[in-house]
Amino acid sequence: MSHTLGEIAKLIGAELTGNPECEIHGVGTLERAGTGEISFFSNRRYINHLKNTRASAVILKKEDQPWCPVYTLVTADPYLTFAITSRLLNPETSVRPEISPSSSIESSAFIHPTAYIGPNVSIAADVKIAEGVYIGPGCAVGKGVCIGANTRLYANVVLYDSVSLGARVILHSGVVIGADGFGIANDRGKWIKIPQMGSVLIGNDVEIGANTTVDRGTLDNTIIEDGVKIDNQVQVGHNVHICEDTAIAGCVAIAGSTRIGKHCMIGGACGISGHIEICDDVILMGMTGVANSIKEPGTYASGIPAMDVKSWRKNVVLFKQLYVLNNRIRKIKTNDQL
Amino acid sequence: MSHTLGEIAKLIGAELTGNPECEIHGVGTLERAGTGEISFFSNRRYINHLKNTRASAVILKKEDQPWCPVYTLVTADPYLTFAITSRLLNPETSVRPEISPSSSIESSAFIHPTAYIGPNVSIAADVKIAEGVYIGPGCAVGKGVCIGANTRLYANVVLYDSVSLGARVILHSGVVIGADGFGIANDRGKWIKIPQMGSVLIGNDVEIGANTTVDRGTLDNTIIEDGVKIDNQVQVGHNVHICEDTAIAGCVAIAGSTRIGKHCMIGGACGISGHIEICDDVILMGMTGVANSIKEPGTYASGIPAMDVKSWRKNVVLFKQLYVLNNRIRKIKTNDQL
Amino acid sequence: MSHTLGEIAKLIGAELTGNPECEIHGVGTLERAGTGEISFFSNRRYINHLKNTRASAVILKKEDQPWCPVYTLVTADPYLTFAITSRLLNPETSVRPEISPSSSIESSAFIHPTAYIGPNVSIAADVKIAEGVYIGPGCAVGKGVCIGANTRLYANVVLYDSVSLGARVILHSGVVIGADGFGIANDRGKWIKIPQMGSVLIGNDVEIGANTTVDRGTLDNTIIEDGVKIDNQVQVGHNVHICEDTAIAGCVAIAGSTRIGKHCMIGGACGISGHIEICDDVILMGMTGVANSIKEPGTYASGIPAMDVKSWRKNVVLFKQLYVLNNRIRKIKTNDQL
Repeated sequence: MSHTLGEIAKLIGAELTGNPECEIHGVGTLERAGTGEISFFSNRRYINHLKNTRASAVILKKEDQPWCPVYTLVTADPYLTFAITSRLLNPETSVRPEISPSSSIESSAFIHPTAYIGPNVSIAADVKIAEGVYIGPGCAVGKGVCIGANTRLYANVVLYDSVSLGARVILHSGVVIGADGFGIANDRGKWIKIPQMGSVLIGNDVEIGANTTVDRGTLDNTIIEDGVKIDNQVQVGHNVHICEDTAIAGCVAIAGSTRIGKHCMIGGACGISGHIEICDDVILMGMTGVANSIKEPGTYASGIPAMDVKSWRKNVVLFKQLYVLNNRIRKIKTNDQL
Repeated sequence: MSHTLGEIAKLIGAELTGNPECEIHGVGTLERAGTGEISFFSNRRYINHLKNTRASAVILKKEDQPWCPVYTLVTADPYLTFAITSRLLNPETSVRPEISPSSSIESSAFIHPTAYIGPNVSIAADVKIAEGVYIGPGCAVGKGVCIGANTRLYANVVLYDSVSLGARVILHSGVVIGADGFGIANDRGKWIKIPQMGSVLIGNDVEIGANTTVDRGTLDNTIIEDGVKIDNQVQVGHNVHICEDTAIAGCVAIAGSTRIGKHCMIGGACGISGHIEICDDVILMGMTGVANSIKEPGTYASGIPAMDVKSWRKNVVLFKQLYVLNNRIRKIKTNDQL
Repeated sequence: MSHTLGEIAKLIGAELTGNPECEIHGVGTLERAGTGEISFFSNRRYINHLKNTRASAVILKKEDQPWCPVYTLVTADPYLTFAITSRLLNPETSVRPEISPSSSIESSAFIHPTAYIGPNVSIAADVKIAEGVYIGPGCAVGKGVCIGANTRLYANVVLYDSVSLGARVILHSGVVIGADGFGIANDRGKWIKIPQMGSVLIGNDVEIGANTTVDRGTLDNTIIEDGVKIDNQVQVGHNVHICEDTAIAGCVAIAGSTRIGKHCMIGGACGISGHIEICDDVILMGMTGVANSIKEPGTYASGIPAMDVKSWRKNVVLFKQLYVLNNRIRKIKTNDQL
């Protein structure tokens, strides 16, 4: 896949300074890109990499053009423009229709003739698989599952019974959708399992990272709306509802029945309690704990950043006695006032 | 599966107000349940849902009966009673005996004729599988593993060699039991792996959530006693011992050789250090870090809840200097005393 | 596998007090080891176990010899010496060459005749598998993957296309190497996926625990150098670089493009931000959050240890107002100075 710089500039809507006939075949970092490759510059920390780049062209902002020794493509948002350029130069491989002879498919399953079913896949009864779907090796698809067009399951994904996926969904390896939620009731010390009768509905254009788990609902469904992007090793509890275009970084834990609004950005390793609501347009910094509903858009945090262990020991002891410290201060104030 | 309200009231031991002949076929939330469905009310936050419910009947406490527009089943613990009712109306599907032709089974393995072995399962030598066991697609069962009666492994579970599971155990997809513990010794900068010769013993009525991992012991076994319930993505280190009827929510990390008592409730995303003991009847709130043994029953916490990012920045700076603050306060006190 | 105590003393370089002809066949804990077994003592907490041991011999330090009722092997580092002894008595089982008939292997893949390929494995085109490699059941190996000599993949490991593993690597079950990094760019509220064109390079003697995920790089590769040991459920983001002989405990989250130096020890459940550098010889205690680069070797922490819930409630309220407290203290000081 190769384009001229002129073609690229037109397709991505950037202003080209340089030879429009220059052939571009790939993308690369400022440090490593060479002839025929295009790079981007959006972080001033890497200014020296820009000054020394051997890329054929660089996508950047107008104000950074003076430092660039090679052809430039000027744009307002270099990171986004780079994303678009990279997609142009690295189009998704098309799915080659095939049903592996080592797959196990129930006769009542419908598989569109343009779909690919890999080795050692198992597909249960009453499954519906739309056009252009890719099911990688070792996946297990439960009874009555529906998979929308051009959705892609990498190797060893598990979909429990009756899960529904939209179109253009990407599920990475080890993802488990629809396992039982953690529903137990205590009967004089013994736990009784509550049947998890809901399912999981996943919209269009959702991507879910490796080894992430999304539990089925207890009575109603767990819902992930269109355009949601979830990284690796995220846990989504039963009856959670995640609204459109929210992005969730790795290792986040979301407890049951919580609703997360649209356009949120949840940083890595956050923990979110059950039965709360996070409104639209909330940003959580990494390792934030959310115990109560958040009703105002904005940025929130609670993580404690690393310090040397000696300071930490002294601070932690005091943290555990903050209210004692506070009482002491109050008394001082009283003394002062006398 | 359908019952009359009268039958249900008798079976669950609740006091019925309403028509005992009313047919009930399922359970639902207060909001969505309709004719023929039963719901429950245990959280005052949802009082409006109760007032507007279209369920045929609601399980609730005596004192909440006045607000209920439909038939009622009065009980002391509506959540528990609902759990029992839901199990009654949604009995587990029985296991259909079958050995999939695409499974790979060593000839020395014993598989009870009532068991189900799904597609693409591999079963190694000297395995023993009791009556009514269900092994979902893609599971791998190592040498010498024992699986008790009516235990269920969903798709893509891995049991390493010599792991032992009790009866009525449920392992969700992606669970890995018996991988090597993290045992390494440092030899002048290089790590030497310590053979992990113990195994994992799991009792009866244990449920383990999707993608949870339980490591084998170094010399002795890792032990999970009867009735323990573990959610998704929990990590249980080597030689951990979890006692009866403890419940552990998602994303908890438990380091090696730690013992957790009976009837504990561990909230989501807690971290528990190695080589410590947590006594019986301890509750940990979500995101708690436990570095030392807990010797008194009770509730413990250490998570920091989210705040707006501006307050957080100021507080975190001060937290890192708490001991400086403390010293300043001490000096003030001295001045006061002069 | 059995040795005399005299042979063992010579092989591990320890000073024997006792009968050199005593036969030893295994290792055990001080509490449980019996005749023919060897144990070790390195933690004074277990002094009573030492005094009552029934092991045939104990590895310990010179100064602890007086308390030992049985034969002793004296050494400077009992834990390390025990590791070496255990490896001696529990050698790795050698790989039996075989290609399971239920595996699916593309014709262009090269598999060394000494390798083992288990049931239900799928191996894509242009894969290279060296001598002595073990691929457990249900693994999926993508196009162009290279696997070095004597490397071992337990059941249900996934390697995406073009991943490269060195020699003597161990990957535990559920590991996913090479899934797409979390690369998305925002276009007026919608997320655009950035193609992840890099790969993952893993050096020699690396061990990776169950259900850990290592993402492929965006443009350059994600790199894990020789001798790195990673525990279960760790998340390694795209373009992370982990240097030689670093050890990472369970449930750590490492965001993209971060570099971790040599000989670091990262405690369990730490969270490490993206685009930072941690220098060589850093130790992070469990649950530490690292938001900025660490430039000095040493030990760092930020976790808050558990306290009883009443104290915690009071402290957390004050933590959220630390800057208010600080302002009050400043005013007091001013008053004092008047």
